[in-house]
Amino acid sequence: MRTQLIAIRDYMRRNGIDLCYVPTADYHASEYVGDYFKTREYLTGFTGSAGTAVVTADRALLWTDGRYFIQAEKELAGSGFELCRMGVKDVPTVEKFIESEAKEGWTISLDGRVTDAATGEKLSKIAEKNHLTLRTDPDPFAEIWPDRPSISKVSAWELGLEYCGESRADKIKWLAEEVEKKECGAHVIAALDDIGWLLNIRGGDVTHVPVMLAYLIMENGKVTLYAMDEAVAPVRAALEADGVSIRPYDAFYEDLAKLPADMKVLVDKRRSNYQIISRIPGEIKDENNPCVLRKSIKNETELKNTVAAHVKDGVALTKFMYWLKKEIGNPDCDLTEATAADRLEEFRREQGAMDVSFDTISAYNANAAMMHYEAEHETAAKLEAQGMLLVDSGGHYMEGTTDVTRTIVLGPIPDEWKFHYTMVCKSMINLAKAKFLYGCSGLSLDILARGPLWDLGLDYRCGTGHGVGYLLNIHEAPNGFRYKSVPERHDGCMFEEGMITTDEPGLYIEGSHGIRIENELICRKGQENEYGQFMEFEIITYAPIDLEALDFDLFTDAELKYLNDYHKMVYDTISPYLNQEECEWLRNETRQISR
Amino acid sequence: MRTQLIAIRDYMRRNGIDLCYVPTADYHASEYVGDYFKTREYLTGFTGSAGTAVVTADRALLWTDGRYFIQAEKELAGSGFELCRMGVKDVPTVEKFIESEAKEGWTISLDGRVTDAATGEKLSKIAEKNHLTLRTDPDPFAEIWPDRPSISKVSAWELGLEYCGESRADKIKWLAEEVEKKECGAHVIAALDDIGWLLNIRGGDVTHVPVMLAYLIMENGKVTLYAMDEAVAPVRAALEADGVSIRPYDAFYEDLAKLPADMKVLVDKRRSNYQIISRIPGEIKDENNPCVLRKSIKNETELKNTVAAHVKDGVALTKFMYWLKKEIGNPDCDLTEATAADRLEEFRREQGAMDVSFDTISAYNANAAMMHYEAEHETAAKLEAQGMLLVDSGGHYMEGTTDVTRTIVLGPIPDEWKFHYTMVCKSMINLAKAKFLYGCSGLSLDILARGPLWDLGLDYRCGTGHGVGYLLNIHEAPNGFRYKSVPERHDGCMFEEGMITTDEPGLYIEGSHGIRIENELICRKGQENEYGQFMEFEIITYAPIDLEALDFDLFTDAELKYLNDYHKMVYDTISPYLNQEECEWLRNETRQISR
Repeated sequence: MRTQLIAIRDYMRRNGIDLCYVPTADYHASEYVGDYFKTREYLTGFTGSAGTAVVTADRALLWTDGRYFIQAEKELAGSGFELCRMGVKDVPTVEKFIESEAKEGWTISLDGRVTDAATGEKLSKIAEKNHLTLRTDPDPFAEIWPDRPSISKVSAWELGLEYCGESRADKIKWLAEEVEKKECGAHVIAALDDIGWLLNIRGGDVTHVPVMLAYLIMENGKVTLYAMDEAVAPVRAALEADGVSIRPYDAFYEDLAKLPADMKVLVDKRRSNYQIISRIPGEIKDENNPCVLRKSIKNETELKNTVAAHVKDGVALTKFMYWLKKEIGNPDCDLTEATAADRLEEFRREQGAMDVSFDTISAYNANAAMMHYEAEHETAAKLEAQGMLLVDSGGHYMEGTTDVTRTIVLGPIPDEWKFHYTMVCKSMINLAKAKFLYGCSGLSLDILARGPLWDLGLDYRCGTGHGVGYLLNIHEAPNGFRYKSVPERHDGCMFEEGMITTDEPGLYIEGSHGIRIENELICRKGQENEYGQFMEFEIITYAPIDLEALDFDLFTDAELKYLNDYHKMVYDTISPYLNQEECEWLRNETRQISR
Repeated sequence: MRTQLIAIRDYMRRNGIDLCYVPTADYHASEYVGDYFKTREYLTGFTGSAGTAVVTADRALLWTDGRYFIQAEKELAGSGFELCRMGVKDVPTVEKFIESEAKEGWTISLDGRVTDAATGEKLSKIAEKNHLTLRTDPDPFAEIWPDRPSISKVSAWELGLEYCGESRADKIKWLAEEVEKKECGAHVIAALDDIGWLLNIRGGDVTHVPVMLAYLIMENGKVTLYAMDEAVAPVRAALEADGVSIRPYDAFYEDLAKLPADMKVLVDKRRSNYQIISRIPGEIKDENNPCVLRKSIKNETELKNTVAAHVKDGVALTKFMYWLKKEIGNPDCDLTEATAADRLEEFRREQGAMDVSFDTISAYNANAAMMHYEAEHETAAKLEAQGMLLVDSGGHYMEGTTDVTRTIVLGPIPDEWKFHYTMVCKSMINLAKAKFLYGCSGLSLDILARGPLWDLGLDYRCGTGHGVGYLLNIHEAPNGFRYKSVPERHDGCMFEEGMITTDEPGLYIEGSHGIRIENELICRKGQENEYGQFMEFEIITYAPIDLEALDFDLFTDAELKYLNDYHKMVYDTISPYLNQEECEWLRNETRQISR
């Protein structure tokens, strides 16, 4: 049995706790969490990105989803934790388990700061119904994790007007008006990207996401930022000059409890932890943070910069593709998925990237069929002069964030792979070349990408694309493409001019191969006429699509023209930044195809 | 000034009413209303299908929408009513007007039975806020309309099991379980089609909709039907044998008020009038009537019958098209839009139709660009041997209800019309041949029809299709095709096997021409594989699409194959019921096209 499990049970006994709930989250409902917040991993030994642990005196359980069943089984062996396979028949949900296990009079404990608002509310109802006591303050790990990494407090920095295009004073004024329109006296923001966007500051507290750990309260139009001294120091003066009060990160929950009891507070519950909603004395108005939609509509400065970032990123990726194809032709080549990914990161940094925007997926042949595959150096597949390498990667530049996927042919491939590659390319093109009346959401457009595959009885089992932040989250709400609504994804808004969304259909054939082609699209206004305002997309990803894997007989004339025009644009945009060899190679890779 | 206006003001004075609200509706939120309910028309003289009148001592106003501005202006001249053009800038909504006009202490009156629940709730709030008295009982027209048509009480009849496919006992049992699942003690239904479906009865109380005027209360699983003696007489014994209690139509509201105050009642507010929701003593659970979704999923008996109805209807329409084309070639032809429509109805009745399913739209050339055009004999356009006639029509057969549109070439047409016709045909085909994973709603599929037109900067400004009832409403929720959600249409459900939906894209060029091609589609299960359950559509409308107006160079191979396969099916299905001349004509009209 893990000593951590023994330690938490000891802690529970000493503190009168009968059941302890340990999810995987930080205080800000972030998609990725820093090391300080990896309490569930510390407790159970399971290293996957998603999971929830529950401990009682007799039982210890870990819930995780299908991606991690095999890994969790291995990692939990001998730990004392039972694996609960989410979604498998007869496996209860965490909440159902707690409801059935807890006896009247039990004390249940969770850290309200790492528990999402919806789950907290559910557990609170269960506690009430079953006469349990719910405690939301304890953080056992403050005590039982001796070598816990310290909480991140990387220096924040100001994103200049030349990058963000709108002053924080203007943004604060706008937000104050929005909050007033909603008849609220205060607005509480816990989402780190919303805070970074509003205040034009960035940080380094979340892996691959340049944000600072902070909370924000706007009360009667005045902003108070709760942040750690060391982190906020470099931007303190600038923030205060714009009327932002700065208070300690740890003072947030106390201040929250002091809001007037008769003040209605705007809180986006999906972007808040349970402690926030249980501490607010007054009525909560649960609506989207106004920042979410506004942030997704990039202004002209952000759009111009984002295009510049994509040019740099395209240069890096193109150089990488040239390098890779040359290397792979070398009989002594000993590249692996992981070393190739490392080299790609170097190309990006040479172009000015300050970080990758997420862990690169570099997946060879059958590995590419696993959508969440992450190559580790020890186990990464060796690349050979056959098959394909799927590379899904991106970078953070001062000018913005990128996300791009190319599936690169390394040598001979079977006809079926070529057929699949061609269909995925058609799917990508059909969505990118959409023209549609204002009012469409991703729900109305998704079938443009998926339709060509559905016609063949194929699918890619995930959304077609997501919004992308500006030097913020790689997955940003509220825009996206999917064919049926998934409310918790919150990505079904109508397309507005200036939104940036990925277009990334794929095909994943288990045990064989995986293909994805991903570009980013800016939504632009098209013609306006008696029928209304037409909208369209502009591709801002500049890297060749492997012609070797395409069967042009399957393209319509319109698709072929779109591909040719795209490749011409790639060549014209990228070639000025390449050396002569790369340039010649790119010219051939982007050659115009005719039939 | 109209005497009716003088009379209602007199009534208001005598009854202490300061403002009287008169909408256009029956007691059942029906799409079409019987003559008894045409009070707004009687009061104002405006004969359009949509409008709301408001009368005070000083002012009299009528609101209507853009379709009717010109007609209303003419018909209201000298009536004493001012026209309020809905949606035009600075024209207040009815509610805003009432709020600004009514003085503290005023008594406002409306007939709660003809006021929809949402409007009633809004006016009730306005009354509360502004210290007005709201009376919902008065029906001024019971007094001031001396020659008011009597309320319809046509004999109801039983729809046999061979037509409806499921016994009323089974349906009632199912509904009782649904109501119980929703933790409600009672369920109130005012929608006439829901009642007709549940009890397997049909009637004749609403123009072109075979339903009986009735209300229904299910209390603790027991059904009470409120209907007029004369109407219900033929089905009384059968209903009572299945445990349905029958009470007078007029006893409904009193009984409603007697429901236990602690009983939660399931009421679909969108399908209820204001009187219903204000009379119920207990808590109201406002959710879709469970019948709505269930009714839309036709069972195998209904599907088989519906196909049979469409064969009859296709025979009628094909015979009509042959006849029309022959007539129009005759130099003495003096057909008009209206006489052609009459002849079509005769063809339908010869095939067994008991009624048309809505007023036929028969619109020649430029008239077809007006989407709500209705030809009157006095003013109908004369048909000539040039241009096109758009005919949108349908019938009620014992085997089901049909809705079909064909745009028929009567002679030479300009190239642009041919181009538009071709594009509309492509749109229709692209939706009909969709294959999609279970989970799609019409929102996700609409662009298949609209996309080819949007690519050209064109649109048809309305939904692409609607659900169709089985010997019930021609527009039936909850399925449909549109590209953005319109919550009050309630047509955004996921497609289920057995739903029937129209596929009717079009193009409407003001002052020139209008084109629509409409088929009905049954949703069927396709293959099920590792990606999930695929769904597809089966066209059940059998009538040729005019090849004369199509430019096959614009068709993809897949579209051309679909059209050829469709025409082969039309010929094979319809030809056995035609005489030799018609048959030869149809063979040519459905000939296989190759390039």
